[in-house]
Amino acid sequence: MSPSYELIYWPGLPGRGEFVRLVLEEAGVDADNLGDASNPPPLAPPILRHGDLLISQTPNILLYLASRHNLAPAQGAGFFHLNGLALTALDGLSNEVHETHHPVSVSDYYENQKEESKRRAADYTKNRLPKFLGYFEKVLRGEKSGDGPWLYGGALTYVDLVLFQNIDGLKYAFPNTVGKLEASGEYDNVFKLYQAVKDRPRIKEYLASERRQKYSNGIYRHYPELDGE
Amino acid sequence: MSPSYELIYWPGLPGRGEFVRLVLEEAGVDADNLGDASNPPPLAPPILRHGDLLISQTPNILLYLASRHNLAPAQGAGFFHLNGLALTALDGLSNEVHETHHPVSVSDYYENQKEESKRRAADYTKNRLPKFLGYFEKVLRGEKSGDGPWLYGGALTYVDLVLFQNIDGLKYAFPNTVGKLEASGEYDNVFKLYQAVKDRPRIKEYLASERRQKYSNGIYRHYPELDGE
Repeated sequence: MSPSYELIYWPGLPGRGEFVRLVLEEAGVDADNLGDASNPPPLAPPILRHGDLLISQTPNILLYLASRHNLAPAQGAGFFHLNGLALTALDGLSNEVHETHHPVSVSDYYENQKEESKRRAADYTKNRLPKFLGYFEKVLRGEKSGDGPWLYGGALTYVDLVLFQNIDGLKYAFPNTVGKLEASGEYDNVFKLYQAVKDRPRIKEYLASERRQKYSNGIYRHYPELDGE
Repeated sequence: MSPSYELIYWPGLPGRGEFVRLVLEEAGVDADNLGDASNPPPLAPPILRHGDLLISQTPNILLYLASRHNLAPAQGAGFFHLNGLALTALDGLSNEVHETHHPVSVSDYYENQKEESKRRAADYTKNRLPKFLGYFEKVLRGEKSGDGPWLYGGALTYVDLVLFQNIDGLKYAFPNTVGKLEASGEYDNVFKLYQAVKDRPRIKEYLASERRQKYSNGIYRHYPELDGE
């Protein structure tokens, strides 16, 4: 019997909901109501509804699902280790990306903060992005990361899915910048992990399906003027 | 026997470490090494060291400590409920506050992004801050929040300490703005909670001690030009 989850999120864009969708897809969990935004959430989407339980905040939803579906230990050191990695990835490779096109007002249009966005994006692509990729490369090379391409313990966890979606979104948003970083060879393990997630049978099928939504006006946006040359 | 925790954080400012310190103080836990920054952390402080375990990311450290020291349920719906509230408070009332004085570059001086900071701070004080205070007011008024001044279940949890520190920092950073919001009466339960935490015996003693560090160049900074009139 499949648990009945409902993801409440804006329809028509991957956004923060995509981190949750990837976990559900990899876990092979029924998710009929993905993208349903009919029921306004308490503060902000994504919200996961599971029976009477409403769970808010992306890293919290991921923690809940992953520990129920074998994509993370349900307790102990590994639980906190992965939560730390997930928070770092979501902060540095997702939340900060949103700031590159909305540096002075979350609620105002990009066009009204374009100049500030150029400054923020230049700092992000030059300093912040290499810093965070370097951090995950270091984790992957570390002796505690186990064998294989994964970030923790030799088996796929939800944090690998998070990092995959980060890289995928960054490739879309900053193709020149990410292309150069990939070509540098300094982050080979990060890009190997990206490919290894992409090759997972369920993820591969999902990415090729219509369930996978196209990038649009969410976190990852492609504005050529914010990408390097 | 008191567990031996070590908090690795920048010395001389409250910052994100303060959320952790408040939990340790309320729990009455020995914390001799607070403020020790001698050991560079993997990516960014705060880091909690507990035996061989190194725990990163503020909300993750809080989750770990709170579930060990009776400031949160160790599992189940309450665990995730509180984690969601903590993430919301830390995002909206702490991370976004840092953005008000560093909207275009985390690594550059405030003085070099002062004009952009004015725009970001205006948006924050007018739109974002009332939105988040309104959310917590709603939670406090909600029937699920239990009796008394607390956010969850009728007893103090770590999320009350987080919200206390948020409000305390906001009062320092934006005295005019917060003064007006408090005087409006729309957020009475939030400010009652603030006072109730302040009156906790251990917190009261801590706040009056030299262990409590003064606000300085951390998350909460007082730049009069960023505060309303």
